[in-house]
Amino acid sequence: MAEKIGRVLKDLKSGRISMKGALKSLKDFPYKDLGFAKVDSHRMLRRGFPEVVFANGKTAGQIIKIAKRIMAHDGILLITRAQKEVFLKLKKIYPKIRFDKNAGTISYRKQAPVLKKGIILIITAGTADLPVAEEAKATSELMGNRVETLYDVGVAGLHRVLDKKRVLERAGVIIVIAGMEGALASVVSGLVSKPVIAVPTSVGYGASFKGIAPLLTMMNCCSPGVAVVNIDNGFGAGYFASLVNS
Amino acid sequence: MAEKIGRVLKDLKSGRISMKGALKSLKDFPYKDLGFAKVDSHRMLRRGFPEVVFANGKTAGQIIKIAKRIMAHDGILLITRAQKEVFLKLKKIYPKIRFDKNAGTISYRKQAPVLKKGIILIITAGTADLPVAEEAKATSELMGNRVETLYDVGVAGLHRVLDKKRVLERAGVIIVIAGMEGALASVVSGLVSKPVIAVPTSVGYGASFKGIAPLLTMMNCCSPGVAVVNIDNGFGAGYFASLVNS
Amino acid sequence: MAEKIGRVLKDLKSGRISMKGALKSLKDFPYKDLGFAKVDSHRMLRRGFPEVVFANGKTAGQIIKIAKRIMAHDGILLITRAQKEVFLKLKKIYPKIRFDKNAGTISYRKQAPVLKKGIILIITAGTADLPVAEEAKATSELMGNRVETLYDVGVAGLHRVLDKKRVLERAGVIIVIAGMEGALASVVSGLVSKPVIAVPTSVGYGASFKGIAPLLTMMNCCSPGVAVVNIDNGFGAGYFASLVNS
Amino acid sequence: MAEKIGRVLKDLKSGRISMKGALKSLKDFPYKDLGFAKVDSHRMLRRGFPEVVFANGKTAGQIIKIAKRIMAHDGILLITRAQKEVFLKLKKIYPKIRFDKNAGTISYRKQAPVLKKGIILIITAGTADLPVAEEAKATSELMGNRVETLYDVGVAGLHRVLDKKRVLERAGVIIVIAGMEGALASVVSGLVSKPVIAVPTSVGYGASFKGIAPLLTMMNCCSPGVAVVNIDNGFGAGYFASLVNS
Amino acid sequence: MAEKIGRVLKDLKSGRISMKGALKSLKDFPYKDLGFAKVDSHRMLRRGFPEVVFANGKTAGQIIKIAKRIMAHDGILLITRAQKEVFLKLKKIYPKIRFDKNAGTISYRKQAPVLKKGIILIITAGTADLPVAEEAKATSELMGNRVETLYDVGVAGLHRVLDKKRVLERAGVIIVIAGMEGALASVVSGLVSKPVIAVPTSVGYGASFKGIAPLLTMMNCCSPGVAVVNIDNGFGAGYFASLVNS
Amino acid sequence: MAEKIGRVLKDLKSGRISMKGALKSLKDFPYKDLGFAKVDSHRMLRRGFPEVVFANGKTAGQIIKIAKRIMAHDGILLITRAQKEVFLKLKKIYPKIRFDKNAGTISYRKQAPVLKKGIILIITAGTADLPVAEEAKATSELMGNRVETLYDVGVAGLHRVLDKKRVLERAGVIIVIAGMEGALASVVSGLVSKPVIAVPTSVGYGASFKGIAPLLTMMNCCSPGVAVVNIDNGFGAGYFASLVNS
Amino acid sequence: MAEKIGRVLKDLKSGRISMKGALKSLKDFPYKDLGFAKVDSHRMLRRGFPEVVFANGKTAGQIIKIAKRIMAHDGILLITRAQKEVFLKLKKIYPKIRFDKNAGTISYRKQAPVLKKGIILIITAGTADLPVAEEAKATSELMGNRVETLYDVGVAGLHRVLDKKRVLERAGVIIVIAGMEGALASVVSGLVSKPVIAVPTSVGYGASFKGIAPLLTMMNCCSPGVAVVNIDNGFGAGYFASLVNS
Amino acid sequence: MAEKIGRVLKDLKSGRISMKGALKSLKDFPYKDLGFAKVDSHRMLRRGFPEVVFANGKTAGQIIKIAKRIMAHDGILLITRAQKEVFLKLKKIYPKIRFDKNAGTISYRKQAPVLKKGIILIITAGTADLPVAEEAKATSELMGNRVETLYDVGVAGLHRVLDKKRVLERAGVIIVIAGMEGALASVVSGLVSKPVIAVPTSVGYGASFKGIAPLLTMMNCCSPGVAVVNIDNGFGAGYFASLVNS
Repeated sequence: MAEKIGRVLKDLKSGRISMKGALKSLKDFPYKDLGFAKVDSHRMLRRGFPEVVFANGKTAGQIIKIAKRIMAHDGILLITRAQKEVFLKLKKIYPKIRFDKNAGTISYRKQAPVLKKGIILIITAGTADLPVAEEAKATSELMGNRVETLYDVGVAGLHRVLDKKRVLERAGVIIVIAGMEGALASVVSGLVSKPVIAVPTSVGYGASFKGIAPLLTMMNCCSPGVAVVNIDNGFGAGYFASLVNS
Repeated sequence: MAEKIGRVLKDLKSGRISMKGALKSLKDFPYKDLGFAKVDSHRMLRRGFPEVVFANGKTAGQIIKIAKRIMAHDGILLITRAQKEVFLKLKKIYPKIRFDKNAGTISYRKQAPVLKKGIILIITAGTADLPVAEEAKATSELMGNRVETLYDVGVAGLHRVLDKKRVLERAGVIIVIAGMEGALASVVSGLVSKPVIAVPTSVGYGASFKGIAPLLTMMNCCSPGVAVVNIDNGFGAGYFASLVNS
Repeated sequence: MAEKIGRVLKDLKSGRISMKGALKSLKDFPYKDLGFAKVDSHRMLRRGFPEVVFANGKTAGQIIKIAKRIMAHDGILLITRAQKEVFLKLKKIYPKIRFDKNAGTISYRKQAPVLKKGIILIITAGTADLPVAEEAKATSELMGNRVETLYDVGVAGLHRVLDKKRVLERAGVIIVIAGMEGALASVVSGLVSKPVIAVPTSVGYGASFKGIAPLLTMMNCCSPGVAVVNIDNGFGAGYFASLVNS
Repeated sequence: MAEKIGRVLKDLKSGRISMKGALKSLKDFPYKDLGFAKVDSHRMLRRGFPEVVFANGKTAGQIIKIAKRIMAHDGILLITRAQKEVFLKLKKIYPKIRFDKNAGTISYRKQAPVLKKGIILIITAGTADLPVAEEAKATSELMGNRVETLYDVGVAGLHRVLDKKRVLERAGVIIVIAGMEGALASVVSGLVSKPVIAVPTSVGYGASFKGIAPLLTMMNCCSPGVAVVNIDNGFGAGYFASLVNS
Repeated sequence: MAEKIGRVLKDLKSGRISMKGALKSLKDFPYKDLGFAKVDSHRMLRRGFPEVVFANGKTAGQIIKIAKRIMAHDGILLITRAQKEVFLKLKKIYPKIRFDKNAGTISYRKQAPVLKKGIILIITAGTADLPVAEEAKATSELMGNRVETLYDVGVAGLHRVLDKKRVLERAGVIIVIAGMEGALASVVSGLVSKPVIAVPTSVGYGASFKGIAPLLTMMNCCSPGVAVVNIDNGFGAGYFASLVNS
Repeated sequence: MAEKIGRVLKDLKSGRISMKGALKSLKDFPYKDLGFAKVDSHRMLRRGFPEVVFANGKTAGQIIKIAKRIMAHDGILLITRAQKEVFLKLKKIYPKIRFDKNAGTISYRKQAPVLKKGIILIITAGTADLPVAEEAKATSELMGNRVETLYDVGVAGLHRVLDKKRVLERAGVIIVIAGMEGALASVVSGLVSKPVIAVPTSVGYGASFKGIAPLLTMMNCCSPGVAVVNIDNGFGAGYFASLVNS
Repeated sequence: MAEKIGRVLKDLKSGRISMKGALKSLKDFPYKDLGFAKVDSHRMLRRGFPEVVFANGKTAGQIIKIAKRIMAHDGILLITRAQKEVFLKLKKIYPKIRFDKNAGTISYRKQAPVLKKGIILIITAGTADLPVAEEAKATSELMGNRVETLYDVGVAGLHRVLDKKRVLERAGVIIVIAGMEGALASVVSGLVSKPVIAVPTSVGYGASFKGIAPLLTMMNCCSPGVAVVNIDNGFGAGYFASLVNS
Repeated sequence: MAEKIGRVLKDLKSGRISMKGALKSLKDFPYKDLGFAKVDSHRMLRRGFPEVVFANGKTAGQIIKIAKRIMAHDGILLITRAQKEVFLKLKKIYPKIRFDKNAGTISYRKQAPVLKKGIILIITAGTADLPVAEEAKATSELMGNRVETLYDVGVAGLHRVLDKKRVLERAGVIIVIAGMEGALASVVSGLVSKPVIAVPTSVGYGASFKGIAPLLTMMNCCSPGVAVVNIDNGFGAGYFASLVNS
């Protein structure tokens, strides 16, 4: 906002806008106030991607109002942890909108993104980690990335990942998703020179403590080149990977 | 109670009451024993506000009996974490009683309170924090405070709160309600000279651990002027704010 | 800062300042950059009290440089968790500076503050809580508050606090400091209509877990009107109390 | 068992039993093996009270088989955390069996116990603690104790318990049951010279962490004379109180 | 205190004391205010034993002042977690005062207590638990109990305790002290009909987490008849045992 | 895999295979890629037992596809934490497949295993631990072990296990399964010279924290010769026992 | 003990011993009572190895007395976590006694053990894990096992362990010792059909929480065949491995 | 390694190497075995940077031997958490080696790296976070990155960072280092479109729990684009940033 005001000041100085225009600009604040939500219309400019809607704890009505506002302003929509009910209502408005049941993501983009060159490789330790992987995939793709996947290659059968050295080398960024003991992130990181984004999942039972065990594993990675996002946070991993990918 | 006995002693000395009257007074203990509950009839005098009913873990029958006793004695009723069922039963007795579905509060006041001058400003980081905010609002208003709200101004889009400096300055006390990482309390506190009451919420997932993450954030606030209440405790924040507000 | 720019814009419009003056103003940023620290010179205006120095983790040299900057700009200095060594060095520069050995606070004020009317009452459960109480006291007094104390009145001998109802009633704000089980905050809060700021301390052993036990006790206070600050954070309690006190 | 063998040895030596009888005795082991359970028939002798059945995690069929075995052998039955379904089935066999819905206890005693002189006083902080209190009461009474109760006298209204000093003094043992911050145990213990058995409950929310908060409070009791049992363990408190009561 | 006032009131009514005497009585509050401490002179009457001094966090000077006050008023002194330095200073005043180096207790009794009939049996799992056991022993003995001990009979060699069934049976109350996994309390409790007070100790390493492991073990005792005190709290166990012992 | 390549290299050198054959071998990687899963066909060779399917978090369709692949390749199938629905579908394909409802295991073996000589003894502390014990039993038996069981011999009635010394001595490996305080593992280990595999269970309530209490107990075992697997992990205990058993 | 009595009974029956001899036998209990310790002289028979002395928390004098008793009775001595001071004192008595400075173990064996055939392989993830490995080695060797070691082969450079497949295959039991994220146990277990005993170490910082991170990793091992001992418990791992090794 | 073997196979096929040469290659394994350590000589090729030495828990002698091996092989050396003593010894061998006392890093590079274009911006919330920042800086620079710093711009004085929008925009990657509540990462991430690597520090006291509070804050960041490394892990942040920087 400071920047915006700075620009207004310069425009005023140069005569490009009048004092009246300058003051009017200041009222046009870069968010839309819906009462229960303030949709950050400025985020697209500031961060290169509009606000993403986290559906948990919001009513269907609230989500739809926010979604419409984002679509109207930015033309790109991502809703995570969404119910099918919300999708069906939005589909009536945006017939081409997509729902990934596994991941629980609703996504839509008026214009196809320009694809980046780099590849984001998404790896899971097990089959039960797929919903988190799919959330990461949906996010990465919506943000214009090429995505490859390598599912169910946990360390109990190490040859399944050792065997894919070429796939690992081809990637620009790697997302490793694992529950239980989460050892896969360390192993993958030790094999390549690419940044690894680690996502602990709540897959497991007992002393996995709903993801605390793999979270700690990943935080204590003896192999440098690993950074961690929240438990089950496929979206965050996809988003971070996209910022890193070129 | 010691005070009461003290007063009785003085009255006795001055001849205002007889010995018999003094002893009778001692039997008139300042609470009503319902067996399963001892309603604290003395609280209004001692604390300026009657006992508030926390509905969780009580049966509908128990709540209604307690509520009736408080209404009869004090004329002000606040029930938190209540089910609609209880509300409907109480509505038959007190037709003007209010239920805030979002917050889960039942409230009623025979006589409108004298409004205080100061404003309590309630801020939330996200839309999902609204139920907690509404509990704080219902509590504050029932206790005679003017309330303003500023919802969904979390630190992901900081300009939404920086933009409201005037609203912040106008407030006498500020309640900041946030889940996930709960960073908003620190940020708001750093901007103003008003006391900030921080309420961590259980909004979030994974390593937010049902509110532990924002609770710790708020306890470790690098900006002084912040004190914290329990996770999701909108009522406690509203009550504390009311004690502070003038 | 937005406000400042706003004001510059208005002054520019009204002709009170020239465009050159306006741009110059923008360069005069409200903090002093010492490299290892950015002293927030603007805080006095924004928050009514200058930056307070938390000595832990800073070298003596760093603390002294920051202290001198704050003294030069604001004339009020508070350093918490300080070593005597730092005090002795500062005493050569500011002969009237004070050191509270118990609390570990260094404090100085060029001009005596205007005393507020309200009283801050500081209560401890035990004798071992005194260092935290003294930190709260030093902070409160430096900020212009009258302070009363009531030490060692823990719930093991409840009459020691019940006996002081008049002292409790006289206070405008109450700080309750307790380790071990920290039950005193609930008890005091139940007796009066004043806001209670609770400070858990690390006094205790075993399952007190260095203050976690009283912290949880205070967060779960069944009596409303209590808000909590960090373990051993006497400074934070004194600061918050001062914001609330009138 | 060693003792039993010892006695057998002595009997053998004295000629009271033959070698054959001695060896046969050794086969008559003091428990009944039901396959899925080994009912400890020896417990009545060893501990003065038969095995108590914890219903959680057992099927109705298993519970009933165990119950029948205990009834046949000892004539005293206590089942905790039981469902009504089990009660109804047992009622067909033992028409006088009792079910306390609140506490979830099924209890039966063929012969009324000899009543002890001492009184067990059961105190709760709130109304929501009643199920735990009722479990303690059912246990204490089945074990032959006189029980008095004092419900809903939490520290938010301290006069409710201060007012009952005579009831406190009359008791031989006191059970204090409290959730949230659990401060009542410390307070009660500070008032009397009787042992206090503290029971933390899972009543509360947020940072009460399903009973951890009151558990820690009670473990760190600054007033000596308090010992603690598991969260919500009314049965354990009643049992321990009965061992202590005379 | 309420009682005291009650008695004053009665005396006043019966003419035994004048109004002036009654009011004077009220000023004679039952504690001694030393500023940094309020010594609870009333505790002896109320609880049958004077205040016990927990030395941690108090200066030597503070401890000695408190100790002298207690000695003057009650003639019985117990200081726990004390340094030898304090003992040596007190020894000059009270030449017969005792110091148990192992336990860190300082104790003194002007008059020998009347011995109770019952025996308190103190059991430890290992040799490293001795300091805690000695604290329990010093406390129990000072309170007039006969004490027997059974040290180093942990469950790794179960016969060491099974072998002492007669000693177990002879006791009126049993204190079981154990670190590491703390299983001994369950085992002992399963063998006898006496109340068992369990003391977890911080003996162990790694996943014993300074006593959390045995604390949890003891809280979850499958054998009823066990109650728990704080980690390393030999004093609390001895005190509780003494209240229970007859 | 390195080994495999090594062998290929040797075969190539010796002329046993052609270069073309060598390269083809390298493509025949030792797992089957189903997209959502990579079934480790090599595990049977490497570890002596095929991949075991953990059903949680997998769809019925996924489980069945994986199961069919394993059956086709190895002829031995073990699915843990399975629903009946999956069993019924598999039963149509493999009519002799078994489902243990208690344990939730589906198991099948085309050819009966060669039985080992040693006995695995499975002990539980209580009846509620049976599902975990049955999972261990199903696993051990499928892997070709003789299994004996000793259920409900917890330390509250120690004679039930002391009485079975001969059974304990007969075993080659012992699995001890216990919830609540989990003390049985220490006790059993102290009696024999056999390795004890301890399985904490989530049986209990309150401070058992869904198995953390017995987990810590077992980790801190004062008697050497105990190693621990995850909470409720009957499968892991059975598998480990089978590796150890001879 | 029951067995012993059983045997006495049989001997009595058969006339091999007299009644007087039988009763005398019962007095000759299988431990030596030193007051502060009860040395378990029976353990050698029962468990195949005498009591091991854990030095932490015992005085040098206590350790030496216990050590002498064990040497006299069993001729095999192992002291863990010992100081050099104790070693030097014991060396005067037993000149051939050994001290492993790294591991902190004192060990001695009058007669060399009969070596078992199997090999125990001890693997560490890093160099800092060596003290724990050396404790495991000293224990294993004293118990008559052949030991091989493979140090510093953590997953950051996986080829270091993949390269040693032959060494892995040769072992009968494998001990894997790792701090930080502890992933090595899963990886090793996935490669072989041997039982893996995992030892988490306190090596690491921050979120390794003194060994909690690798402990959880190892408990949640996705590859079956792993069991875990306490943090830094090299002794326990060596002891368990020796029981398993043949 | 598999790749290496692959290449050997190809070379063999094409005739570039003989069978003998191929087999010899297989013996030349890519690490140097020092007994206590296996220095990973292959890492430079595989990951683009040699093994980094974590000094904690290693003896000076071990560190120096490892360091010499790495220098000989790769010519780039980084030792973290090092003591001055080690530096002084290495300085005699490598006179140009550098020691950053604040960060505890020893670093050396035979040849200056080729500088990347992108800038890594390192931000700290406070002055006490500097040692961690300096570790990140030393790491980043050794890996060939341009580094800028912005120290002490915590959220208590938000304008200090808002004021540096241009510096933020200029960076390619941002490292945010913060203790206490760690809110700065969220705030910075919300302002820019660059990936933010968050480092929680152990700066703080009480409920910061040695870095757990900021760790959780950063994991729960409401603003996407943040990934987290271990507490105080400046090295890991610098390393990850370098992989991402271009």
